[in-house]
Amino acid sequence: MSDAAGHRVVIVGGGFGGLYAARQLGRAGMAVTLIDRRNFHLFQPLLYQVATGGLSPGDISAPLRSILKDDRNTRVLVGDVVDVDVAQRAVILHDDRRVAYDSLIVAVGMRYHYFGHEDWVQVTGSLKTVEDALDIRRRIFSAFESAEAEVDAGLRAAWLRFVMIGAGPTGVELAGAIAELKGSTLRGEFRGFDSPDAEVILLEGSARVLPPYPEVLSQRARTSLEKLGVQVRTGAMVRRIDAGSVVIETTGGLEETIPTHTVLWAAGMKTTPLADQLAQRLGVEQDRQGRLIVDPQLQPPGHPDVYIIGDMAHRSQDGVALPGIAPVAMQQGQYVAREIGRRVLGSGTQPFRYVDKGQMAVIGRNAAVCDLKHVRFGGWLAWVTWLLVHIAYLIGYDNRLRVLAEWAWSYFTRKRGARLITGEPPPQQPRILP
Amino acid sequence: MSDAAGHRVVIVGGGFGGLYAARQLGRAGMAVTLIDRRNFHLFQPLLYQVATGGLSPGDISAPLRSILKDDRNTRVLVGDVVDVDVAQRAVILHDDRRVAYDSLIVAVGMRYHYFGHEDWVQVTGSLKTVEDALDIRRRIFSAFESAEAEVDAGLRAAWLRFVMIGAGPTGVELAGAIAELKGSTLRGEFRGFDSPDAEVILLEGSARVLPPYPEVLSQRARTSLEKLGVQVRTGAMVRRIDAGSVVIETTGGLEETIPTHTVLWAAGMKTTPLADQLAQRLGVEQDRQGRLIVDPQLQPPGHPDVYIIGDMAHRSQDGVALPGIAPVAMQQGQYVAREIGRRVLGSGTQPFRYVDKGQMAVIGRNAAVCDLKHVRFGGWLAWVTWLLVHIAYLIGYDNRLRVLAEWAWSYFTRKRGARLITGEPPPQQPRILP
Repeated sequence: MSDAAGHRVVIVGGGFGGLYAARQLGRAGMAVTLIDRRNFHLFQPLLYQVATGGLSPGDISAPLRSILKDDRNTRVLVGDVVDVDVAQRAVILHDDRRVAYDSLIVAVGMRYHYFGHEDWVQVTGSLKTVEDALDIRRRIFSAFESAEAEVDAGLRAAWLRFVMIGAGPTGVELAGAIAELKGSTLRGEFRGFDSPDAEVILLEGSARVLPPYPEVLSQRARTSLEKLGVQVRTGAMVRRIDAGSVVIETTGGLEETIPTHTVLWAAGMKTTPLADQLAQRLGVEQDRQGRLIVDPQLQPPGHPDVYIIGDMAHRSQDGVALPGIAPVAMQQGQYVAREIGRRVLGSGTQPFRYVDKGQMAVIGRNAAVCDLKHVRFGGWLAWVTWLLVHIAYLIGYDNRLRVLAEWAWSYFTRKRGARLITGEPPPQQPRILP
Repeated sequence: MSDAAGHRVVIVGGGFGGLYAARQLGRAGMAVTLIDRRNFHLFQPLLYQVATGGLSPGDISAPLRSILKDDRNTRVLVGDVVDVDVAQRAVILHDDRRVAYDSLIVAVGMRYHYFGHEDWVQVTGSLKTVEDALDIRRRIFSAFESAEAEVDAGLRAAWLRFVMIGAGPTGVELAGAIAELKGSTLRGEFRGFDSPDAEVILLEGSARVLPPYPEVLSQRARTSLEKLGVQVRTGAMVRRIDAGSVVIETTGGLEETIPTHTVLWAAGMKTTPLADQLAQRLGVEQDRQGRLIVDPQLQPPGHPDVYIIGDMAHRSQDGVALPGIAPVAMQQGQYVAREIGRRVLGSGTQPFRYVDKGQMAVIGRNAAVCDLKHVRFGGWLAWVTWLLVHIAYLIGYDNRLRVLAEWAWSYFTRKRGARLITGEPPPQQPRILP
């Protein structure tokens, strides 16, 4: 082992796990290289706000270089890691560049998965990247425009029907935000229909919304969603999706067709191709979602110089796999940085232990659910808690102030200013207007 | 003539001209239809701030529907007008929808023009739409990333050389903003080079920057630009542009090759295809840039129900053609609305007269030039004046507050938070790192 200053740590991925590891390691004076495909850190918990016009992408992201600017031994590379040479200890980029490491931290997250229905990618929006969010924003606001241009009431209703698939936190947040859009933000802006007449349908295959949360909070979330005007349908399995409808099978085994042009997918995650390749290179087991099963030091067995953290790591604690959420990734990033420090100094090792501070999900203006360690609550207090906790974790002081100001403004005015339909041309509008 | 309430006015284009006409007409209770390809009004004078990471698109745009929400007789259509049926008095949309009018206002602006070098579109960025601005943002920040990945000093220098073509207001604003980026915002963020070593070159074919301004202000602007580190080269004609260089011919007739990967085009505007088609339909003369030559009522001769306003209209006043700037378009929009009112009420007609309140251009933090009617000044005072005037004209109260807050923040911190490289993947990085 070399000393701390000479120790080269390569971190793949600038999400919560990678960034928290980098900041911690930067302070220890190690030679850190953070590699990401993007030049910015994205605050994913607020991505649904971009998708629904409440915030701009710039509000919830910060340039990786700015964040790590003062760690003079840390460099940021924008590039696509395609492979890892485990024997030679180097990561390989898309252009064959190799970056050597003494310790490697991989934290590349997950992506949406369609359970073998890869054709659904074309007709649904999903929410993982900034581009995804802008695509959803385009779909939502274009649908309202198409409805305004449509004279046939039945066809218009299909444009005004929004279907979310999957009632995890993302599906619930999207459904709540679209319900607020149609119910208050857009009210009075159209001439061919009243925006509150739009329908928001949240489909969930299991028996309740927010399945990983305690049942009492699921019930509270459902009540809040319904109060906002969301049609919550649990026990509904999606069978087919095409450009004009979603076909579901309900618990009784009956098929039902829902005419809609806007389907948003928030069900099912899987690991990335890099994670799968890495699993093979390292000879490590994967779980059903492809996550790499790591030991108590967050390492693949037999590879003392490699750490796997964040959503792509499968680590059980007290018999339950840790969830793929930001707090787990942050704590793992900081743990791994300290662990590498201990190894370099030869001061032994400690297992990772996640300190659960609770989970939250936001349903809308004034409504959220919080499952803190010994207290569970919903409503306005939960919403404020959710807001403050999320803003506190926003990376970069200026973003925090800005987002708080935007939120305060949008809270009091119910406006959503960032409603631009950008990128693709608006969809073909169907027929002649009167 | 019908009465005011029944009078159908169709406005094509939601820029300054169209929007100011719509607001004025909305108050008069006419049946207004505003048609735009986009669902938002864009505050173009600040678009260069989006291109350089200072603001997000949502900060400088406002949904057309929100702006016109309270004018209950006004409707907004998002669609692409492809033709006008002058005889039947209807505009025709891309999907063959027809919208009938009693009065028609066309205000669709201009686009960049490459003087027969249409292949230059591929290798240069230009600044007209939100997508253009995000493309330029991607080009600029990707170039810095490519420089960081490049080990050869000569090749790196080409990545760090930014060339603006055309020293009108847009070219000057972009050059100033990039100079500030490299000189202060990005300082200390890269490990392979010092960002102030980047070069910003402003090329202008004529003898001075800001050619339409008084000579004393041109000189002041040039001094400010040079103080920021911009290389100003007047009398430089662009001969060739490719992916790796710009070839210019200087006044002596000598050719010179400037190696660069980032060329931004801000020279030469032309009318849109719709304007050209309309000119044909109306049998109206066009100037060299394609602008439609209108009479003192801003009408094509012989068409009392059609008005052409904004950048696409050629109207001379005191022997000089009015410039294609926002204040002209705004005043024309309001004038045309009043003129239609007068016609509907049968109370005669008045010619349009532009009240020139002056021109301004911003060069950077603390530097701008103002040519107000009887006073010309530069420096910090001009910069503050520019800032306040532009923010005052931002449509939508919340945008104004937000942009002012962002600006104050960015002024005191020199940060530019909205530096996301989005859309396209980053360009191929050239070679192996050490």
